[in-house]
Amino acid sequence: MNDTANVAVLGAGAFGTALAAVVAARGNAVSLIGRDALQMEKIRTGGTNEKALPGVKLPASLIPSAEPRALSSADLILLAVPAQNLRQALQDTRNHIPGHACLVVCAKGIERKSGQFLADVVRQESPDNPVAVLSGPGFATDIASGLPTAMTLAASDMDVAKKAARQLSGNTFRLYASTDVIGVEIGGSLKNVLAIACGIVEGRGLGESARAALIARGLAELMRFAEAHGGERETIRGLSGLGDLVLTATSHQSRNLRFGIALGEGRTTAELMAPGTPLSEGAFTAGVAARISMEKNIDMPITQAVAAILDGKIAVDEAIDGLMNRPLKSE
Amino acid sequence: MNDTANVAVLGAGAFGTALAAVVAARGNAVSLIGRDALQMEKIRTGGTNEKALPGVKLPASLIPSAEPRALSSADLILLAVPAQNLRQALQDTRNHIPGHACLVVCAKGIERKSGQFLADVVRQESPDNPVAVLSGPGFATDIASGLPTAMTLAASDMDVAKKAARQLSGNTFRLYASTDVIGVEIGGSLKNVLAIACGIVEGRGLGESARAALIARGLAELMRFAEAHGGERETIRGLSGLGDLVLTATSHQSRNLRFGIALGEGRTTAELMAPGTPLSEGAFTAGVAARISMEKNIDMPITQAVAAILDGKIAVDEAIDGLMNRPLKSE
Repeated sequence: MNDTANVAVLGAGAFGTALAAVVAARGNAVSLIGRDALQMEKIRTGGTNEKALPGVKLPASLIPSAEPRALSSADLILLAVPAQNLRQALQDTRNHIPGHACLVVCAKGIERKSGQFLADVVRQESPDNPVAVLSGPGFATDIASGLPTAMTLAASDMDVAKKAARQLSGNTFRLYASTDVIGVEIGGSLKNVLAIACGIVEGRGLGESARAALIARGLAELMRFAEAHGGERETIRGLSGLGDLVLTATSHQSRNLRFGIALGEGRTTAELMAPGTPLSEGAFTAGVAARISMEKNIDMPITQAVAAILDGKIAVDEAIDGLMNRPLKSE
Repeated sequence: MNDTANVAVLGAGAFGTALAAVVAARGNAVSLIGRDALQMEKIRTGGTNEKALPGVKLPASLIPSAEPRALSSADLILLAVPAQNLRQALQDTRNHIPGHACLVVCAKGIERKSGQFLADVVRQESPDNPVAVLSGPGFATDIASGLPTAMTLAASDMDVAKKAARQLSGNTFRLYASTDVIGVEIGGSLKNVLAIACGIVEGRGLGESARAALIARGLAELMRFAEAHGGERETIRGLSGLGDLVLTATSHQSRNLRFGIALGEGRTTAELMAPGTPLSEGAFTAGVAARISMEKNIDMPITQAVAAILDGKIAVDEAIDGLMNRPLKSE
């Protein structure tokens, strides 16, 4: 049932380390490749990644390396570098990526300089490799600790998706195949914007009822955006859409939610986006998504309100009034 | 824009008191009718309902009464008695309910002895009155405190639904009209079963990722059940379905979630359902919904697992394995 493959993970942050750990726990060697040679050596000698995933014991079959050539025997490469670094990472490792290897995008977001979703970045940089996207509700610590997690693995070719899902799944980490690559990418990226909106409502003390209403309406926005881009409703209301939205918008482990809470509590965008502060991917995605929604005439009041707040065009209270007091039409 | 009507609320629990308060805050007199004359007198003299909604100041236009005849001038009657008491309450007050009054079901659940949804109970007991259902994500304290809440008001006749929605909505309490009565009732009832499942996962320490996956799959179950009963997908993924599911399954204010947490922590069904303990409506609904799903061949593994746990037919860990390790089919 569980196919085996040579798996390598590019990117030794929390998520990459967790993925390497859970796949290695199946028993086969998995390479985890990071840029920082000293950090990778510490992982090798200590058996934990204290910088990214402190306290989680990594299996012996996880092989840390700072050498891109560790990619060269891989059949399946999990790309777990941050969204904005993905293109550079592919360019830096190009000579080591086998032509047959399936490249799996594990970051969520939109590339700032191009406005492209990440599967398109990979297709551009590695046009001959099969491309897949892994997304859904999975915190790194949950995955790495062996707690049950269920996520989506999408590729335009269902056989590619199913094969990769089998090659990566274990008893606790379960991947479900899909062919709706764009739907999965949209869910994974745009839910961060909605999480900021939920954070604003929470930070303003507006209660859990208001947040729940916002999540329901936010899902409707995701669906409209996905449909306008050829994605499927089923994807948006599944693991990689709704599942991830619920996780990101209700858990204080979520950076985007915390960013929104700080905004709702009165911190300014300038403070929150100052250099050196942790990045909220949703804060960038908001502007891109709001612009596209206006160009394509997609009804997305929540996303547009978040973008307007971040741009300083509207105050938080004014935005909330606008969101909560929509006309009493049927819905 | 905001029609006025003579509004009365039958049932002076937390939810009924909150509804009476928020509608009375618009300025018009609203009767709040409870059975306990002493409690109603205390509300009148103290300006708060300390038993059901402690600390929340009620508007002067809220008129407490223990007299069913206070219903006799109402155009709109909010039925806020517990699901299992609804039929009796309608029988007890029959002579005081005007024939033209719109009866709005504000409880969620299924009547145990008949297996009927509550709008059907009302139609049976008061066949000549227009019937509507109010449901969605709204905690009594949030509503009564004037925090923003958005819920659904459904009636088979859209004009009835729109009129009632206008007559009840205020600046913070927003009702959206729908004609999908059965879809709204199914969402409001069955989400309690899913909240128990989420509680079990939480009580067992399985993490927020697992809970989020369960919510996404739970929504799919709600959709299948609703479609099999003529309800609409749009309703299930809206305020009264998804919105209420998210609220009930993630907030510790939710009694059904807490019931599930206790099960996950190892308490037995017998302990949790002993006479005198607070009722978890979902614990009853689980059995009815599971039976219907088997009769009608509707795929509902989460609901069936909760019912089996409550019946003592399966252990919690076994049920969780079954839920989280579904076959790796595409979804």
